[in-house]
Amino acid sequence: MDENPIRFGIIGCAQIARKVARAIGLAHNSTVYAVGSRSFEKAKKFALDNGLPDSVKIYGSYEEVLEDPYVDAVYMPLPTSLHVKWAILAATKKKHLLLEKPTALSTPELDQILEACRQNGVQFMDGTMWIHHPRTAKIKELLSATKLFGKLKSIHSTCTFYNETHDFLENNIRVKPDLDALGVLGDVGWYCIGAILWATNNQLPKNVTALPGPIRNEAGVLLACGGSLTWLAGEEKDEEEKVATFYCSFLSNVCMDLSIHGTHGTIHLKDHIIPCKESSASFEFTSGAHFTDLHLGWNVEPKKIEVVSQVPQETTMVQEFARLVGNIKITGSSPDDTWSQNSRNIQIVIDAINKSLDLGCKNVDL
Amino acid sequence: MDENPIRFGIIGCAQIARKVARAIGLAHNSTVYAVGSRSFEKAKKFALDNGLPDSVKIYGSYEEVLEDPYVDAVYMPLPTSLHVKWAILAATKKKHLLLEKPTALSTPELDQILEACRQNGVQFMDGTMWIHHPRTAKIKELLSATKLFGKLKSIHSTCTFYNETHDFLENNIRVKPDLDALGVLGDVGWYCIGAILWATNNQLPKNVTALPGPIRNEAGVLLACGGSLTWLAGEEKDEEEKVATFYCSFLSNVCMDLSIHGTHGTIHLKDHIIPCKESSASFEFTSGAHFTDLHLGWNVEPKKIEVVSQVPQETTMVQEFARLVGNIKITGSSPDDTWSQNSRNIQIVIDAINKSLDLGCKNVDL
Repeated sequence: MDENPIRFGIIGCAQIARKVARAIGLAHNSTVYAVGSRSFEKAKKFALDNGLPDSVKIYGSYEEVLEDPYVDAVYMPLPTSLHVKWAILAATKKKHLLLEKPTALSTPELDQILEACRQNGVQFMDGTMWIHHPRTAKIKELLSATKLFGKLKSIHSTCTFYNETHDFLENNIRVKPDLDALGVLGDVGWYCIGAILWATNNQLPKNVTALPGPIRNEAGVLLACGGSLTWLAGEEKDEEEKVATFYCSFLSNVCMDLSIHGTHGTIHLKDHIIPCKESSASFEFTSGAHFTDLHLGWNVEPKKIEVVSQVPQETTMVQEFARLVGNIKITGSSPDDTWSQNSRNIQIVIDAINKSLDLGCKNVDL
Repeated sequence: MDENPIRFGIIGCAQIARKVARAIGLAHNSTVYAVGSRSFEKAKKFALDNGLPDSVKIYGSYEEVLEDPYVDAVYMPLPTSLHVKWAILAATKKKHLLLEKPTALSTPELDQILEACRQNGVQFMDGTMWIHHPRTAKIKELLSATKLFGKLKSIHSTCTFYNETHDFLENNIRVKPDLDALGVLGDVGWYCIGAILWATNNQLPKNVTALPGPIRNEAGVLLACGGSLTWLAGEEKDEEEKVATFYCSFLSNVCMDLSIHGTHGTIHLKDHIIPCKESSASFEFTSGAHFTDLHLGWNVEPKKIEVVSQVPQETTMVQEFARLVGNIKITGSSPDDTWSQNSRNIQIVIDAINKSLDLGCKNVDL
């Protein structure tokens, strides 16, 4: 543990907060300093259930966490509809902000949050974990290897899990119109879109189309949907036309596929968002594949590449966030804008998919 | 070798004919009896290059093959634009027809061919090989296992290979408007659509949409494109809403992905059309996956299932075709209509994708 770890206040005791509280504890440069819930009892129970030390401050309101001068940063896993209010308040109180995804209900809402962060010089990062896994960096290395991968041509991402209970599909926080109106698109769809944009080095597509066949619950919240993204050839010679599709659902067996297709290489992941196990994660890479004589087989088979993970990916996320916060605290430097740009682009695509759905799956130009 | 093997006449000496000639030779119930090309020399060279026995009849025209009374069946790997003429003539001459895919330039054209087959009582089958691999049967078994796979929700298929040469992209037979006007959609797109329909037990989708971002060569022939297929919930309780997407391209590294998503199970193949090696092929199956406590990992990992292949899949195809032809010859039974229905449904979806492309990627109802 570092000498002066970043002190986190956790605002809200959602299920996901348990995982991130553990990650903050495992990170070398951060510590859980305070937990706040709408009731003192709930916050207390969260601390006990998650084995947090007795020294952790327990608060019966979110405000108290934000007022505590020793809190450097907040982790905020609140329902999306509450993000604008509490994220802006946190920024105003100079708390660095690790905000659970989806970051907001719409881009204009997110822009309010990001503006508050900018004005108050606080670091912003959303709670996407996979992007911090060392496997992700290894894949980006291969995607950049011109001879091995070539030019990026297409991407497909699927993120699904299954919850058969009527209660989940109608009443879970992720599908309640007043809490998380984006439904599956904001929940696991966030990862699909994020992965696609990540593979393109965060280039916004030229246009976005929702795919036919979305499924909604009785309240009209999305339970399953897909989308198509298109990039046109740029003026730069290496900017190729590219396409991507994704599919996200609360109605299918757990699946977290990402496949990335280049002229010379292909990448496949099957456990993209949450690796099957913590200690290491794999992907498959195929390069320079062609058919053998008479097309009886392939000259190469997809090659499995295993990447060891020293700490869980959410710990890497927390460490990176805490490192940026530490820089700002110590050197007075500006926040790193990369993370807010990433989140904003995902939010823009989500908005476009929703707009396309409203228009009966018409193409939406960005 | 059976005592009275089905005697094949090969009409046209395309590259793919080499593979199928070998398959006819390997099959226990068929033999290459004649080879016909537009020139005697080409046919002769084909026979020599492919080690066919001296007894094989060599013809300098397609007509002579069709006139030979000892030819039971023809394998026809001609350019698609020539299928109507020669397939109908073959049927009229009572030759059973193994027709290379795409079967025709459009459904009305295919219907003429199928009608000629029906009128003449000859067996029809298209040259799709993967569907005859024992792996395919094993997967269908799992797809039907309600507890393990559950209800089918979505499918994604990708079939690409890369040919960087300008000559291929502008002049290869597969991209010449007068020879194979369907381009990549009729070539590897045939497999994508076929796999999707196969997974749905050959149910035609309710509607079809081309995805934005198709790429064409200078002559306007498709080099890369995608599509989305949608099935609505049926009146039967187990007929669920389903969606599928596909992507096919001549501009990306070899990739033959098929993923099938059910409520309880997921199937993944990476070498769906041409298995990496002949002797066996694998796929991955995940059933009943959920996240472990705190969502730190999965309770199960995708399980690799290997299926041994006694003979190459194209040999199984030839054997099945020859078996059906043998039944007709010996018992005078009617041709098996399953194969023509399969091909026709694929052709209908190809037509719908083309129509959608013509309409600027509008949704096309079937």
